[in-house]
Amino acid sequence: MLIIGERLSIISKKVREAIQKKDKEPIKQIAIEQWRAGAHMIEANIGPAEENGEELMQWMVTTIQEAVPLPVSLDTTNPSAMEAGLKIHNNQWGKPLINSTSLDPERFIMFELAAKYNAPIIALTVGKGGLPRDAEERVEIALQLIEKATEYGLSPEDLYLDPLVLQISTSQNQAKEVLRAIKLFQELNDPPMKTIVGLSNLSNGCPKEIKPILNKHFLSLLIYEGLSAAIVNPSEVMETIKTINVIMGKTLYAHSYLQI
Amino acid sequence: MLIIGERLSIISKKVREAIQKKDKEPIKQIAIEQWRAGAHMIEANIGPAEENGEELMQWMVTTIQEAVPLPVSLDTTNPSAMEAGLKIHNNQWGKPLINSTSLDPERFIMFELAAKYNAPIIALTVGKGGLPRDAEERVEIALQLIEKATEYGLSPEDLYLDPLVLQISTSQNQAKEVLRAIKLFQELNDPPMKTIVGLSNLSNGCPKEIKPILNKHFLSLLIYEGLSAAIVNPSEVMETIKTINVIMGKTLYAHSYLQI
Repeated sequence: MLIIGERLSIISKKVREAIQKKDKEPIKQIAIEQWRAGAHMIEANIGPAEENGEELMQWMVTTIQEAVPLPVSLDTTNPSAMEAGLKIHNNQWGKPLINSTSLDPERFIMFELAAKYNAPIIALTVGKGGLPRDAEERVEIALQLIEKATEYGLSPEDLYLDPLVLQISTSQNQAKEVLRAIKLFQELNDPPMKTIVGLSNLSNGCPKEIKPILNKHFLSLLIYEGLSAAIVNPSEVMETIKTINVIMGKTLYAHSYLQI
Repeated sequence: MLIIGERLSIISKKVREAIQKKDKEPIKQIAIEQWRAGAHMIEANIGPAEENGEELMQWMVTTIQEAVPLPVSLDTTNPSAMEAGLKIHNNQWGKPLINSTSLDPERFIMFELAAKYNAPIIALTVGKGGLPRDAEERVEIALQLIEKATEYGLSPEDLYLDPLVLQISTSQNQAKEVLRAIKLFQELNDPPMKTIVGLSNLSNGCPKEIKPILNKHFLSLLIYEGLSAAIVNPSEVMETIKTINVIMGKTLYAHSYLQI
């Protein structure tokens, strides 16, 4: 499973301050921590980035790739910031990931960028009518996203379908719909469609001490259903990922499996 | 899900010493701890109990039920000890559970006792040829066990099918077969067959610090597949049981759900 470190996000105060001061050290440190904890890719979430988005995304990508030999998942709704990041991404460490597109026509340009830069792209199963109600609605939207991607010259293998994890504190019944969607998405193509989640959304709004508990248990079930990729805090969930992989026979058991 | 406290077992040194001295206090204390941690039933595992088995089982059952208002799961291969326990079990707190029978003809008498005392019974899916190789072999054995139970006047609802959890350190590939068996067992009857596991078997032989990690993650997946009952250390797994129930929408989310 592809593990994407979530911590370099504009919603973190530490990250915002580093960005304001153009201080590379905290950014590098968080990138290195996530790499050491097991991340295969580092998310750079700069938000809408309406001002100086291009410069900001390039600064983030460069800073991250100066610190760790990993590709970057570029998270912004600003298409020029996205393209600026794609342009200078060091593909020696793997392809960048575009986070994200959806059925919103304003975001179709992200499909264009995915084709132009030969980058995989996250497609959120959000419909025109708002948040999806159940797994079946997510599947309907996913089919439209696959069709739309094809129009832009992408193949289904370039897409990561994201069923949209919602807050359990306000949308409890959606957790099992997300699990069902992960299973159903895979059946939409052969080879199976790739799937991804932003895990921490689940426990947004929950007390601090139960967030990792909810996240870890939900991730166990997601991996069991065949999830391909997750945007997570790696140090929080590596124990779960390694343990489920041992239980499912994907890695060999050794008494030291948690240290490997 | 029915939670059965596993700790009153002859393999525990503390329990063995209390039995030798006929000291009720440690037995009561462990029963109370498990009840407070969330157990619905207390396992009394006295092993083969070839000498004084009847007296020993009666002493265990009485001691437990003096301490906690719960039914007891009687675990012995000695049929007279089993019957002695069933005779004095206080059914005011619920029916006792017979642990266990199998396709071994020497253990068919346990079916007889289940019918005579109107008690549910655990049926291990162990065949005549030794340990089952996969989920399908477990299902074949389960079908024979259901048939055998019927011969003794029991109904499928009286059975708890046990797929036999094996040690992950020596039988790693069996963990996912057990998960598949839990799913397949339920499809053998309508209403679905009840299922049970002895969870800690999974991590027998593993280093002490990783035992609870393996147990909890495996239990998450078992509950997700619809497990009806588990013999566990309740304080080790209640967080997992409560969290999976919240994720699956079986209990309502509240910020305090772990305290409830």
